[in-house]
Amino acid sequence: MDKLIEKIIEKQNPTVAGFDPKLAYVPEFIKAECFSKYGNTFEGAAAALFEFNKRLIDALCDIVPAVKPQAAYYEMYGWQGVKALYHTIDYAKSKGMYVITDGKRGDIGATMEAYAAAHLGTTEVEGAKLEAFGADALTVNGYLGTDCIRPLLGICKEKNKDIFVLAKTSNPSSGELQDKKIGDKTVYEVMGEMCEGWGAETIGRHGYSAVGAVVGATYPEMLRELREKLPHTFFLVPGYGAQGGGAEDAKFAFDKNGLGAIVNSSRGIMCAWTKQDGKTEQNFAEAAREEAIRMKEDLQSVLSNQ
Amino acid sequence: MDKLIEKIIEKQNPTVAGFDPKLAYVPEFIKAECFSKYGNTFEGAAAALFEFNKRLIDALCDIVPAVKPQAAYYEMYGWQGVKALYHTIDYAKSKGMYVITDGKRGDIGATMEAYAAAHLGTTEVEGAKLEAFGADALTVNGYLGTDCIRPLLGICKEKNKDIFVLAKTSNPSSGELQDKKIGDKTVYEVMGEMCEGWGAETIGRHGYSAVGAVVGATYPEMLRELREKLPHTFFLVPGYGAQGGGAEDAKFAFDKNGLGAIVNSSRGIMCAWTKQDGKTEQNFAEAAREEAIRMKEDLQSVLSNQ
Repeated sequence: MDKLIEKIIEKQNPTVAGFDPKLAYVPEFIKAECFSKYGNTFEGAAAALFEFNKRLIDALCDIVPAVKPQAAYYEMYGWQGVKALYHTIDYAKSKGMYVITDGKRGDIGATMEAYAAAHLGTTEVEGAKLEAFGADALTVNGYLGTDCIRPLLGICKEKNKDIFVLAKTSNPSSGELQDKKIGDKTVYEVMGEMCEGWGAETIGRHGYSAVGAVVGATYPEMLRELREKLPHTFFLVPGYGAQGGGAEDAKFAFDKNGLGAIVNSSRGIMCAWTKQDGKTEQNFAEAAREEAIRMKEDLQSVLSNQ
Repeated sequence: MDKLIEKIIEKQNPTVAGFDPKLAYVPEFIKAECFSKYGNTFEGAAAALFEFNKRLIDALCDIVPAVKPQAAYYEMYGWQGVKALYHTIDYAKSKGMYVITDGKRGDIGATMEAYAAAHLGTTEVEGAKLEAFGADALTVNGYLGTDCIRPLLGICKEKNKDIFVLAKTSNPSSGELQDKKIGDKTVYEVMGEMCEGWGAETIGRHGYSAVGAVVGATYPEMLRELREKLPHTFFLVPGYGAQGGGAEDAKFAFDKNGLGAIVNSSRGIMCAWTKQDGKTEQNFAEAAREEAIRMKEDLQSVLSNQ
């Protein structure tokens, strides 16, 4: 996790910008240009998504260390949308950002090797090793157990990549399974402990392994509990902003050095212009930057008081 | 689930052919043609995958009711591979087959709506409703609870689609979480009961709901237990053949009418020519058909003895 942690330290900002670009979030002037060029098609939609993302990346890349494109919002625009995901990842990396593909993938051994190659590694084609998507990290669903994680660990070690395994998700019904008790531990705690185990051989300079966990800001008590119990597990924290979590909630994800977590904001940043006085959609990138600065300061204020 | 069940009855065959086309499984003569046309690129690989799948579909479509492409094996060839997934689904449907996209997707509400639109529904682009992938069913990971399932139920009802939620997977480490006890029930049992609940309003003519479950043939006792406890939940059964399960194991997935489940074979069918005397890769499609007939007879023999 060193690569991510060092970008966070450099920018003094533990924020990841979630890129979940529903077409409805994309400003009309971008859509108009793309649809006039490609028609009302997935090609047009994909071009609009990429243009939107590109301008956001340009506005954010010197202050925000990481982006997290959510695969679902690209898949819904067909393979053309998935092509826009590829270009988004590629562009963000070219601007020095750390990229987390939020795919929540999880499957058995041989199939997980394919996902690992797809999202973090390379695929061999007639001797050539080609990068399919080439993110720095992937979110993973560990319901299938170690078989699902092992293929990823090899690539994490070899290529300096990371994964984030779902432990306690930010949504209202996450407790239906995750909060249930297995003996005296909850399911999310069991999953968290498995993350510590899976990561044990990949602990880096800053004390965190390549196996992180997803823990929602909407459950601050559970964040606090897991931060104590999982000292080598870096947290990806969704739920800040639109989902209701604030900096006071997210602060429990951090260690005493103010590290150990990165907090996601998606709609809060992408749609910032709709919440700021005097802004129009023409100012969406500038508004996103202002919101990212506000969020950075919001997080810094609670961290410096810890 | 009626559409699938009626195709199974019509073909008298509860088999789904898994399309997990590693490039290594694709015959050399297909690859040579595609790589000479497109170079050693993802375009070439994707063309080879689609040509392989197309010939398999032609050889199987009159005897096998369904195909299950595994998304990972397409994603590993980039957006070009994902385009081949789209064409595979489209071609299989044009030949009357029921298509299950094996993506094991799972996310929170708004994002799950995007996955539901992507894989089962339609996406609106400037008023036009376009199909991104358009499968008949999607495999789903329910770790996030009802928030993850609800967006799918609407599309299942409206468009006569189905989902299969992971309950007890076929892999060796599936028990690490799934077999753990929550009170007096296992995690997979809790997940199975949630499937019954989620499906309650979508029970069709044959007594099964739109919410099926994935239960591996490699755990026959658990198959038997779940078949009894989940009378309205149709099972997708992986693990037959290459993973070690046989018809004697898979039979516990079926109800007293010989319905209630569909058994998957991937490598067993795709790579059948490597196991049959006198076959070369030139005969891969013919060998796949012979293996599908053998598997059908294998399953029928245990079902007629129940």
